[in-house]
Amino acid sequence: MHIDILSVLPELLESPLNHSIMKRAQSKGHLTVAVHPLRKWAVNAYGQIDDYQFGGGAGMVMMCEPLVKAIEELQQEGPYDAIIYMTPDGERLEQKTANRLSLKERLLIICGHYKGIDQRVRDHFVTHEISIGDYVLSGGELAAAVLVDAIGRLLPGVLGDETSALTDSFQDGLLAPPVYTRPADFRGWKVPDILLSGDPKKVDEWRHDQAVKRTEERRPDLLD
Amino acid sequence: MHIDILSVLPELLESPLNHSIMKRAQSKGHLTVAVHPLRKWAVNAYGQIDDYQFGGGAGMVMMCEPLVKAIEELQQEGPYDAIIYMTPDGERLEQKTANRLSLKERLLIICGHYKGIDQRVRDHFVTHEISIGDYVLSGGELAAAVLVDAIGRLLPGVLGDETSALTDSFQDGLLAPPVYTRPADFRGWKVPDILLSGDPKKVDEWRHDQAVKRTEERRPDLLD
Repeated sequence: MHIDILSVLPELLESPLNHSIMKRAQSKGHLTVAVHPLRKWAVNAYGQIDDYQFGGGAGMVMMCEPLVKAIEELQQEGPYDAIIYMTPDGERLEQKTANRLSLKERLLIICGHYKGIDQRVRDHFVTHEISIGDYVLSGGELAAAVLVDAIGRLLPGVLGDETSALTDSFQDGLLAPPVYTRPADFRGWKVPDILLSGDPKKVDEWRHDQAVKRTEERRPDLLD
Repeated sequence: MHIDILSVLPELLESPLNHSIMKRAQSKGHLTVAVHPLRKWAVNAYGQIDDYQFGGGAGMVMMCEPLVKAIEELQQEGPYDAIIYMTPDGERLEQKTANRLSLKERLLIICGHYKGIDQRVRDHFVTHEISIGDYVLSGGELAAAVLVDAIGRLLPGVLGDETSALTDSFQDGLLAPPVYTRPADFRGWKVPDILLSGDPKKVDEWRHDQAVKRTEERRPDLLD
């Protein structure tokens, strides 16, 4: 998979994309990510990419021209399966969206800033609008990093057994059950006996029950 | 506000915390953030902080002891208003949670990895469990960065007028309306006439109508 990211703050993405699982995904060749500074397509020598909004009011808007020029130039390398705009009014990211996007070949992610991007870019170029949650961030870069991480770790060969995506929360529609490791007794706080029983069937049942219970208590909406 | 972050991958947080708005928040003195490498409190000279889970199965669990030692040592600097564990089975982060946390003085954020942290740390130390959304990431660092950004930009004095948190999505229970900037005509795609009318009252009405319409279409749940 190849992901291009368009950003006014490319340096913000450096460390999230170059450590841990994302580093492994790229060094193993499962994923390539290129972050493109939007100012490369600025409308003037001052690097302008935003302007006041029509109709007045606080907050700058990212202009059409730099974004459209950037998209069209990047498209010449090959068509995108999705042109994604990270925005708090987009469709909320869920695991199934990440699963689905992990099957694509080429993605372009646009990071918004200020009041967002000119609506015409959304109308004519963007194919998916994604929000990572119901809160506002100072820019789309962290949202893009979250999306790349959620997708990248699902690519075949990226995760080792130690990270084991199949038993994650959400993959079976339930939250994950509680987990414990050594010591069995820490300051008098003990691990549930059943986990020490050595009976894999009982352990599985207990984990399933705990997962259902936790989901009922915390996120009954997931059970509907 | 002061935020401590406990992480096995502190380097992953470098660029998100040191650019743009987060850099400004810190250089202006509104926010201090300290990322603490959990391995400092490892149980042995190999830097061990995780172990196999009781009951078997794929995936390592972050041990009690390093986390508890770290929390207790950091607490000596002063009590925390909240000890937050970033986890996909936590309460989903919403703007109102960010608003509320932005009023606190001292926060500790714990980043999970692998299958998560030993349940006993959650039971006895953690006061808030927060999820940034219904998807799984390779670790809690990006989630912590998202939380710090969502909170940090709300601190008084951090945002200038150009970023203007008050007209953000969610702050009034509605998604933000479409925004446009120059040119008024781009490749024949025109800005709505009303935004060029020079009539602030009409513009306000249009924006409100658009915000309601967009919210009805995309997120009717927000209107309930």
